[in-house]
Formats: sequence, C-alpha cells, structure tokens
Amino acid sequence: MRKMVLSLLVDNSSGVLSRVSGLFSRRGYNIDSLSVGVTEDPKYSRMTIAVSGDDLTLAQIAKQLNKLEDVVEITELKDGSSVCRELVLVKVKSSREEKQAIIAMTDVFRAKIVDVSVDSLMIELTGNANKIDAFIGLLDGFEIESIVRTGLTGLTRGINNSGKD
Amino acid sequence: MRKMVLSLLVDNSSGVLSRVSGLFSRRGYNIDSLSVGVTEDPKYSRMTIAVSGDDLTLAQIAKQLNKLEDVVEITELKDGSSVCRELVLVKVKSSREEKQAIIAMTDVFRAKIVDVSVDSLMIELTGNANKIDAFIGLLDGFEIESIVRTGLTGLTRGINNSGKD
Repeated sequence: MRKMVLSLLVDNSSGVLSRVSGLFSRRGYNIDSLSVGVTEDPKYSRMTIAVSGDDLTLAQIAKQLNKLEDVVEITELKDGSSVCRELVLVKVKSSREEKQAIIAMTDVFRAKIVDVSVDSLMIELTGNANKIDAFIGLLDGFEIESIVRTGLTGLTRGINNSGKD
Repeated sequence: MRKMVLSLLVDNSSGVLSRVSGLFSRRGYNIDSLSVGVTEDPKYSRMTIAVSGDDLTLAQIAKQLNKLEDVVEITELKDGSSVCRELVLVKVKSSREEKQAIIAMTDVFRAKIVDVSVDSLMIELTGNANKIDAFIGLLDGFEIESIVRTGLTGLTRGINNSGKD
C-alpha cells in the first residue's frame, strides 16, 4: 500500500465532482481526502485527491481518471518535486491550565490560535500530512471536540515541470 | 444570491462523496468549493461545502442533504459564530526584481514562501475567502502560473454551539 496524491485540472461544471467521485465509489476505491476549488482560470477547477492502494490499483485509478472528458490534465504530486500542504482546524476543550500547555505546543508548531472561549481553544495549523498528524498526536491527552481537515493540496515545484503548461 | 458554507459530518464510506455531489449535479446546483477529510473519529469524515444561490435554493440544498442516510449532521457555518479558513498555493513566474516585490507583499499578508526556483516563487497563504481574494488580486500584475485552493473549511466557535455534540 502506498499513498498517491493526484492533482487534476478539470472543467468547472456542476457534474465533474459527481463523475470523478462516482468513478471511485463504483470500483470501491476509497478516497483519503479530496479538495476542489477555483483556479486562475474560471473555466477550470483544480481538484486534489489523496488515495491509498497497491501500485496496480493506483495505476488503474490514474488511467480511469484520464478517460473522463472533464479531466483536462492529471499530475501526480510526488514528494521531491512538489509542495503539498493541508489545513486543519482543531477545537479542544480546555481549562485555563490546559490552555497554557496547548498554547505552548501551538507555538512550537507555528500554529495559530483562532478562537478562544471559556472552555475551549481553536487552533489553525498548516503543513504536510506528517506535521499535522504529529500535532494531533500531541493533543492526545486533551479532549478534542472537533477536527476538520481540508485534505492535501499541492503544486509541482518550479516552472518547467508544472502541471498545466 | 448569497453564499452558504455547510459543514457535514458524514459516514466515512466510499460512496458518500458520490451521493452528495450527485445530489448537487442532478439538480444543477453548482458547488463553489468542497473539501473532505478524516476527523477525530475514523468512522466519520467532515465535508465542507460552499455554495451560492438564492434563499430558496439554499434551503432546498440543506433539506436534500439532510435526507441522505450517510449525512449524520449538517451545520451552517455562519459568519459571526464560526471560523472559516482556506489554504491557497500560488506559483508566480518571477524575475529577481519581481521576487523582491512579491516577497514584500507576502510579508504583509503573513503568507509563506514555500518554494523558490530561478524563475518562480510559490506562496502559501491561509485566511478567510476575502483575504485570499485580496492577495490574489494584488498579484494581478504578475504572471500567475498556477493556483490551487482547498476551498473553505470551518468549525463553529466555542463548545455549546458546536456541530457534533
């Protein structure tokens, strides 16, 4: 099993997401995370999909996606040649003493406190998946109320190996 | 037309995304952005969907989503009572002189330079949609090579008005 992150440039139409996700669900492939948003060109959206599987399955996924008409281009975001990031918001139940400990951890990870209430803190953190998993792991002793993650997104490094041109 | 951001707690199964996005495409509702990732509980994923429409359409979308079996809970993330964030990566073609101007802007927005090549810079920025649109607007004089946005994600503020409990 390995993890693959695919960056798809797709037509910005209402059915694309349904066709892409349908392709995964019909074949029983599980998506670890998916994010889709607008790009520099309103005609296109960029979709980032993280999937796990053996090499054969992953090759098939890429091949099937390539066959979809809405998919203009597929790039695999590989470790060395791309930058991948994820954003996470974590809400932690916390007393005054616990808040101090959490804020200290937040500083170490260069995370940001984005909301404080009497009995909770909300933290925003960005980074690669390892950094985010490590941070969430450290919060294990506290009572995590909710976590929301955007899923990985990324771009290839430099200009020549870019996805689009 | 107004914008609505919905936070959905959904079963972590392979067909959910397909059913949710199918609901939108069958009715011709357009999704502005969508992100889905794991949560504090491996049984569930959290999906954040930004949609635009008139009040009637938006009410219908929420009602239809509520009918889906996989959807455990829906919360509308409203401006005052929630924190919404988005992550964007922007790759800009840039000469040495242009790099200096871009780096100065990056500092003002507390964005991060995450990759540099001879003829490009990659910038990571998080914030609400307005901040991100403003930053991208300022880059207008430069040649933007690619942009990828995770789409909005968010959580309700404090503990008692939280989505899950």
